[in-house]
Amino acid sequence: MISRPSRRRPWNGNNHMKKYTIATLGSHSALQILKGAKDEGFATLLITTEDRKSLYQRFPFIDEIIIIKSYHEFPELENELRRKNTIIIPHGSFIAYLGIEGNKKIHIPYFGNKKVLDWEADRMKQHQWMKEAELNRPPLYKNPDEAEYPVMVKSFGAAGGKGYIFAGNKKEFKRKISTMTEKKYIIQKYIIGVPLYIHYFYSPLSKKIEILGIDRRYETNTDAWGRIPFKEQREIETDLSYVVVANSPLTLRESMLPEAYAMGERLVEASKKIIDSKGIYGPFCLETIITSDQKFHVIEISARIVAGTFLFQQGSSYSWLLYNEPMSMGRRIAREIKIAIQQKKINIILD
Amino acid sequence: MISRPSRRRPWNGNNHMKKYTIATLGSHSALQILKGAKDEGFATLLITTEDRKSLYQRFPFIDEIIIIKSYHEFPELENELRRKNTIIIPHGSFIAYLGIEGNKKIHIPYFGNKKVLDWEADRMKQHQWMKEAELNRPPLYKNPDEAEYPVMVKSFGAAGGKGYIFAGNKKEFKRKISTMTEKKYIIQKYIIGVPLYIHYFYSPLSKKIEILGIDRRYETNTDAWGRIPFKEQREIETDLSYVVVANSPLTLRESMLPEAYAMGERLVEASKKIIDSKGIYGPFCLETIITSDQKFHVIEISARIVAGTFLFQQGSSYSWLLYNEPMSMGRRIAREIKIAIQQKKINIILD
Amino acid sequence: MISRPSRRRPWNGNNHMKKYTIATLGSHSALQILKGAKDEGFATLLITTEDRKSLYQRFPFIDEIIIIKSYHEFPELENELRRKNTIIIPHGSFIAYLGIEGNKKIHIPYFGNKKVLDWEADRMKQHQWMKEAELNRPPLYKNPDEAEYPVMVKSFGAAGGKGYIFAGNKKEFKRKISTMTEKKYIIQKYIIGVPLYIHYFYSPLSKKIEILGIDRRYETNTDAWGRIPFKEQREIETDLSYVVVANSPLTLRESMLPEAYAMGERLVEASKKIIDSKGIYGPFCLETIITSDQKFHVIEISARIVAGTFLFQQGSSYSWLLYNEPMSMGRRIAREIKIAIQQKKINIILD
Repeated sequence: MISRPSRRRPWNGNNHMKKYTIATLGSHSALQILKGAKDEGFATLLITTEDRKSLYQRFPFIDEIIIIKSYHEFPELENELRRKNTIIIPHGSFIAYLGIEGNKKIHIPYFGNKKVLDWEADRMKQHQWMKEAELNRPPLYKNPDEAEYPVMVKSFGAAGGKGYIFAGNKKEFKRKISTMTEKKYIIQKYIIGVPLYIHYFYSPLSKKIEILGIDRRYETNTDAWGRIPFKEQREIETDLSYVVVANSPLTLRESMLPEAYAMGERLVEASKKIIDSKGIYGPFCLETIITSDQKFHVIEISARIVAGTFLFQQGSSYSWLLYNEPMSMGRRIAREIKIAIQQKKINIILD
Repeated sequence: MISRPSRRRPWNGNNHMKKYTIATLGSHSALQILKGAKDEGFATLLITTEDRKSLYQRFPFIDEIIIIKSYHEFPELENELRRKNTIIIPHGSFIAYLGIEGNKKIHIPYFGNKKVLDWEADRMKQHQWMKEAELNRPPLYKNPDEAEYPVMVKSFGAAGGKGYIFAGNKKEFKRKISTMTEKKYIIQKYIIGVPLYIHYFYSPLSKKIEILGIDRRYETNTDAWGRIPFKEQREIETDLSYVVVANSPLTLRESMLPEAYAMGERLVEASKKIIDSKGIYGPFCLETIITSDQKFHVIEISARIVAGTFLFQQGSSYSWLLYNEPMSMGRRIAREIKIAIQQKKINIILD
Repeated sequence: MISRPSRRRPWNGNNHMKKYTIATLGSHSALQILKGAKDEGFATLLITTEDRKSLYQRFPFIDEIIIIKSYHEFPELENELRRKNTIIIPHGSFIAYLGIEGNKKIHIPYFGNKKVLDWEADRMKQHQWMKEAELNRPPLYKNPDEAEYPVMVKSFGAAGGKGYIFAGNKKEFKRKISTMTEKKYIIQKYIIGVPLYIHYFYSPLSKKIEILGIDRRYETNTDAWGRIPFKEQREIETDLSYVVVANSPLTLRESMLPEAYAMGERLVEASKKIIDSKGIYGPFCLETIITSDQKFHVIEISARIVAGTFLFQQGSSYSWLLYNEPMSMGRRIAREIKIAIQQKKINIILD
């Protein structure tokens, strides 16, 4: 383990929160989280492996980078992190790197409710949560015989679009399922419509929900087919994959915004009922398909910051309506922590 | 009817236009219009129904919300609106909620030329307007026998992409047309190319046209097919719909920008000839398809603010070139009104 | 030749570089280049033909417009340009208007290494450059018999997506190649994946590479097919073209950003080995296809500013991370020139 300060020019903002350190792992949404933390005046710390050092040391808002050989070493850092008054901001790679149990074992302050992790990872629990929140969602099928095709098969471990299977009929289902190593999965009806992902932030301090941005994912090779006319596709061996490699911005029809806000509120309320009294707070995302009757079909919950929020580093059309200053999701998290510190309510927002 | 002030924190801008109120209905582009009005220092007022109150009261730039039971009550508000020195900014939902006649009967100051409404709603008149402006446009066919397929059928009442029919051949035309309740429609050649929507603002004070942004629409389920390879599509019952649910940003090849500006100018000039001496002013949009020879084909005129402008709440690459400060379409409208008030030319821009 | 000052309101920025003039031709990226130059305090000059005057005189950051009858007249301007202490910023249309030889004959200061022009124009040399940089790239085929289909055929003169041919099989290749007038071309494997274009800037002063934005191109009519279900496509005569008419923004999965940065660095290093000791500097773009295994396939190098950078007139999510102030590619170029002037290192960045 090597601890090295990055030698950067000083950041042109305030630093009135500098006795607190905001830290995260070097992947997924780290840039946005630490940029936002620096904008709010915190000291910033990145923990990453050697191969990513060259990327992260380019950015002047990262005060310090700690290099570890593997993420298994993470628990060994806890004393040092505690000394620095560190608050950990988890993102999508925390599960991939540390596992759910690894996250639960983190003993330093952690932004978010760890009990939510189980409800996100188990797709049946996630479906129950959606149901409790009265979110319109595609039917789930118990087996390939009762399914109405096409369907999407989603393994419990699927992440970043990897591990999703599209099946147009039962035969295709059987052929593809035999190649899947993961044994736990759901069979979800494939909805014909357009994907749209809504970025929420729920503040346990103000008890309000905010929509801070909307994106769509850019999936390879799913988004490749539309550029090839069917006459040409006939000769190409189809291999349909949903791996997310990029994101692009969207804004939603204003008449659908009341329901978008209401869905977020219902999800938070439901989490307080079925998870625990704190429920979900901070950033999360509802992943929807919209059909031509202008209805949302929620296909998935991401119970933490999603990568698509990176689009709005300088704020989105939605965040400008609320803040009238640049407010990325990363900065919004740091703002919540800052307010909690100032109001001496830090235990409300940490786990 | 309930009138209720929203209890919001004060907006961090100026308020030197506060003795004038900018008002609109709660839908379509209301957020952008009122945010822009507040940025320019006006008092802001939203008129909406109970179900949307919870959305609009989230936003700190809306000074007051008046709840009405139904939009039929709108005329009853006129005395109150007049007392508040109100200027109404219409948007796409004004026709849907109040009808063309309802708009014409509004006796309080209204931003825009109401005579244009007839020329937008009647698709044959719209086509004549385009022709007068020498806009390149798809051929119209008098009947399904003379058409060159594929075609788009657009009813006179179609809005937000609803009520459009795609027909690949005469048989399909006949089958689909039988399901259409609207009796007035046009048959337009379907142009194979990419859609691109140009947001214009014409200032009757400076007599200049401005391009403030460009978008494309996200249509369900039209934009769903490209994500499904043809082998999978074969088993899906096709149902092609053009309902707009979101928008995404574009920037145009710079060598095509001279024609984009010239098209806007010609449309304004033509309107002064065939509508009345004021012609069209304020925001409008040309909806184009671009073919591989880099030519615009104008498929429709929206003679008012379009929803896609919401993308550029903090300005677009185009508006920054002109203003070097954040300038959304909503704010541009308020800016024009402010300048007209300052120059005592308010009658030039109101109807 | 007519020289005319544009009568514009003064720009609301500094002008401490006003004894130097930044000039370019009226097309491609001119708006962004001159806006950026003005933001950095330079005098700005546009050279264009009469038909584009009406566009460019709309913009307040262009101090002067010189109208020429044809681009053949460009060399006649050199004395005047020298008198104005002019630095020329080339863009994609410089080759189209003046040719490679015309660019090499420009005797006034020119931002960029002209030796790179040959390596960009000759597709075999470009491929060699990519190979030297160890960029993952699609295989090239010597003839249609050895090709693995589908393939893209790219003529040496192809620009803006014009002159690209898609061929699904050998028969189609032979039919289409017979219509191509250009005799020099490459046959490149068509990669099934999503296109993503990375905008780099290499500073020879700081010796650092920066990613300032990412886009995808909007190609007509390639991007038209995904909106037409296959049942409808069957009756349409396919004509596949890749002409770029617009661009839209993307952000890349953060875990792929280390390789994106590394690719840019390797390209710069390779250019110093095989072109000359200065190598490539300033703006360039790697045009990639990403496959579902999250690998980049570099299909082309643009060795200068690309049109897609116009999306980020007010900065991108990437440039904000580095600068915390609005930084378009156009402004970044002007910033580099300004620093070079201040550090008396101007010969490092000019050719």
